[in-house]
Amino acid sequence: MQFLLEVVDILTNYVRKTFDRSTKVLDFHHPHQLLEGMEGFNLELSDQPESLEQILVDCRDTLKYGVRTGHPRFFNQLSTGLDIIGLAGEWLTSTANTNMFTYEIAPVFVLMEQLTLKKMREIIGWPDGEGDGIFSPGGAISNMYSVMTARYKFFPDVKTKGMTAAHRLVLFTSEHSHYSIKKASAALGFGTENLILLSTDERGRVIPADLEAKVIDAKARGCVPMFVNATAGSTVYGAFDPIHEIADICEKYNIHSQGAWGGGLLMSRKHRHKLSGVERANSVTWNPHKMMGVPLQCSAILVRERGVLSGCNSMCAGYLFQPDKQYDVSYDTGDKAIQCGRHVDIFKFWLMWKAKGTIGFEHHIDKCLDLSHYLYTKIRDREGYQMVFEGEPQHTNVCFWYLPPGIRDMPDGQERRDRLHKVAPKIKALMMESGTTMVGYQPQGDKVNFFRMVISNPAATRSDIDFLTDEIERLGHDL
Amino acid sequence: MQFLLEVVDILTNYVRKTFDRSTKVLDFHHPHQLLEGMEGFNLELSDQPESLEQILVDCRDTLKYGVRTGHPRFFNQLSTGLDIIGLAGEWLTSTANTNMFTYEIAPVFVLMEQLTLKKMREIIGWPDGEGDGIFSPGGAISNMYSVMTARYKFFPDVKTKGMTAAHRLVLFTSEHSHYSIKKASAALGFGTENLILLSTDERGRVIPADLEAKVIDAKARGCVPMFVNATAGSTVYGAFDPIHEIADICEKYNIHSQGAWGGGLLMSRKHRHKLSGVERANSVTWNPHKMMGVPLQCSAILVRERGVLSGCNSMCAGYLFQPDKQYDVSYDTGDKAIQCGRHVDIFKFWLMWKAKGTIGFEHHIDKCLDLSHYLYTKIRDREGYQMVFEGEPQHTNVCFWYLPPGIRDMPDGQERRDRLHKVAPKIKALMMESGTTMVGYQPQGDKVNFFRMVISNPAATRSDIDFLTDEIERLGHDL
Repeated sequence: MQFLLEVVDILTNYVRKTFDRSTKVLDFHHPHQLLEGMEGFNLELSDQPESLEQILVDCRDTLKYGVRTGHPRFFNQLSTGLDIIGLAGEWLTSTANTNMFTYEIAPVFVLMEQLTLKKMREIIGWPDGEGDGIFSPGGAISNMYSVMTARYKFFPDVKTKGMTAAHRLVLFTSEHSHYSIKKASAALGFGTENLILLSTDERGRVIPADLEAKVIDAKARGCVPMFVNATAGSTVYGAFDPIHEIADICEKYNIHSQGAWGGGLLMSRKHRHKLSGVERANSVTWNPHKMMGVPLQCSAILVRERGVLSGCNSMCAGYLFQPDKQYDVSYDTGDKAIQCGRHVDIFKFWLMWKAKGTIGFEHHIDKCLDLSHYLYTKIRDREGYQMVFEGEPQHTNVCFWYLPPGIRDMPDGQERRDRLHKVAPKIKALMMESGTTMVGYQPQGDKVNFFRMVISNPAATRSDIDFLTDEIERLGHDL
Repeated sequence: MQFLLEVVDILTNYVRKTFDRSTKVLDFHHPHQLLEGMEGFNLELSDQPESLEQILVDCRDTLKYGVRTGHPRFFNQLSTGLDIIGLAGEWLTSTANTNMFTYEIAPVFVLMEQLTLKKMREIIGWPDGEGDGIFSPGGAISNMYSVMTARYKFFPDVKTKGMTAAHRLVLFTSEHSHYSIKKASAALGFGTENLILLSTDERGRVIPADLEAKVIDAKARGCVPMFVNATAGSTVYGAFDPIHEIADICEKYNIHSQGAWGGGLLMSRKHRHKLSGVERANSVTWNPHKMMGVPLQCSAILVRERGVLSGCNSMCAGYLFQPDKQYDVSYDTGDKAIQCGRHVDIFKFWLMWKAKGTIGFEHHIDKCLDLSHYLYTKIRDREGYQMVFEGEPQHTNVCFWYLPPGIRDMPDGQERRDRLHKVAPKIKALMMESGTTMVGYQPQGDKVNFFRMVISNPAATRSDIDFLTDEIERLGHDL
């Protein structure tokens, strides 16, 4: 126990320093440097045990060479921040070290999951919060669930007979959508060629007329349109697909529709209109571990119709789901999952909700979007910056190019494009080497590498946004 | 931070009491009782925040009404125990709160995963530890990966064209195998009817001749045998399928073979012969969160051939896996996964391995099997007990019926079966209500409900085994 308290001491010091802006975000080393053993940090495993003193040193080194994702200047991913209540929730969860498959060994967590999912369904707008759902290991798996439930609803025979029971099913998603829909198409046996990508407008939003045209075309080719994924907050642009118009088309052609991960905005009275129509989706993926700042992993798949999720996945294993238990076995939720053992992801989220209240999440969401607005208004007309698309961002994503002075006056053309394409990676590499901040970049379609700034960290302030742009300018000036 | 330390105080008290045999394993309540709010424990979420004092009370109540899976007398699941080093590892992991998808944000963890997987492949016996692998959210998902990699290896077109590119694939697994193979068959589009169950001998081991006959029969029906799952330590009986003989048949017919989860035994010089031939499998699922006592979740899928895992799953998302990063991007392992975000499951395992050494795991495994042997020899000839199968258990699973005195002299027949079927559930219910111990039960095939005792808890001793049998006799005597 003394050992555990010494680890706690290391961890609380780490947390304190993470919130201190004079601490670096990371201390970058290449893989070969770490593998060679930095200052005695030996990653290799051996036959003989190490002393507890050495284990404490290992813990310190692990943190030292890692990345502080909770640092106010870490903007690299959609999941950032370090919520202390959420952290306490995770510590309790790992101390309880149990498994969500049965009420028998996770009574409190099973009930928390049930109540929380119901609350989320109420917020989506399903009558009385009716429906079903489950927490899964990440948004990609939640999206996989949504495709599976759609398939089961329309073609239940696939469960027993396989995909031969339902030929030529096709799925639709935005060309800007998350790649997990593609992964699900491959894994579940649809094939990625049967995932039809939808064209988007200049802001990255699906064009409903394109969806309808592609549905009609697919039917003409003898395919069966089964599933449309509407993205609420796309990964790069932060675009919100027009859910109502997509739902209209789905209802007309009897297709399953699925809302997506920008779920956090549903908690904001100011921003939830961006997901208007989400209540018409048959299933919704909602990742509290993104905009809502819940520690990783925390993702929910919510399904409008009861019974589909368990119908789709249940296999009634006799050694876990005995029907002759003394309690109401409808609380044994494990058979709804594609997993057997399932990590307890609910407690940290439940605890944060208790501690913040729904209004606390609302404030957090609103603040992040305010900060994005601040960044957008700061750089849209600033010399050296160019926005990737016109107009106010819909989500916290702000996509922009930084143009070093040497590029600004170059004529448009391949040479300028080539040089600009190398700017973001170079600035990013310099950022990581100096350890001061981190932000993502990528190309998109025919657009060369640009920065994608996202804000989900509750610790970030305007001064951190200012720091980021200063840093980009400092590191990129001479490129 | 004061709050966090107060939570730590609650947690360390909880851990201390968990190891104290005078503490109950659980304080059982029915779902409706907990939902009604036990002594003010209110699970409902609300708009307004709660005070930090109330949050601490919530934490205490959550633990109070939960199940102590680390208690020396908790035998209910394959995953039990509470390893303090592993726990410290989880606390550090949640404090680091990062994501395995890129080296960029998880440099140390990515390298730890790579080194640990290599070490595991060496232990399996693949030359120089060559091959690939990934940690996944549980054994069911690892098994799903193994089916996916087999499919990709033989029919890579399925990735793009779907299951229509490879008609009538069939899979084989033991009738005693874990239900996750069935779940994978349904999810991945094979259909559960195309999973062919193999007959077993009286000890629950697959009969190789039955496999060969069913392979020949499937081919005669125009099906394509693709995958055989060999179970190393079945869920209920703890049976080890004869891997060499299965591998012979797989090689003869060019089928992918997959070893299973009893991986922990590979670390024991005394017991690893039970998995003899595992090095011939194309992939192996190995769950350190079971026999090796690593906190949940910690499961690895290991693949013999390099490139299959990433070939199968990669989608090259531009916003995460930029090819123009400054470091060697072969360390960005995220695209091998079906997930996008991936929880850090490696650190606690790595830290435990450091602290115990390989020999520490060996001692733990040997001790668990010794305890099972103790239980087996104690009850095999004891009045009131009947073993479910003859002979020494191969794994820690000891399967037995307890016969209350009133049943012992009844003639064999339906009435006796009916009464015996109700004994284990009733004793289990009484155990949970008295909170003293927990052990699993289930029927299997035509066998009525019997107890399945499994030992993976390092805190368990012979006195706890004695306690269990005493408790079964105390609670079951008058049934």
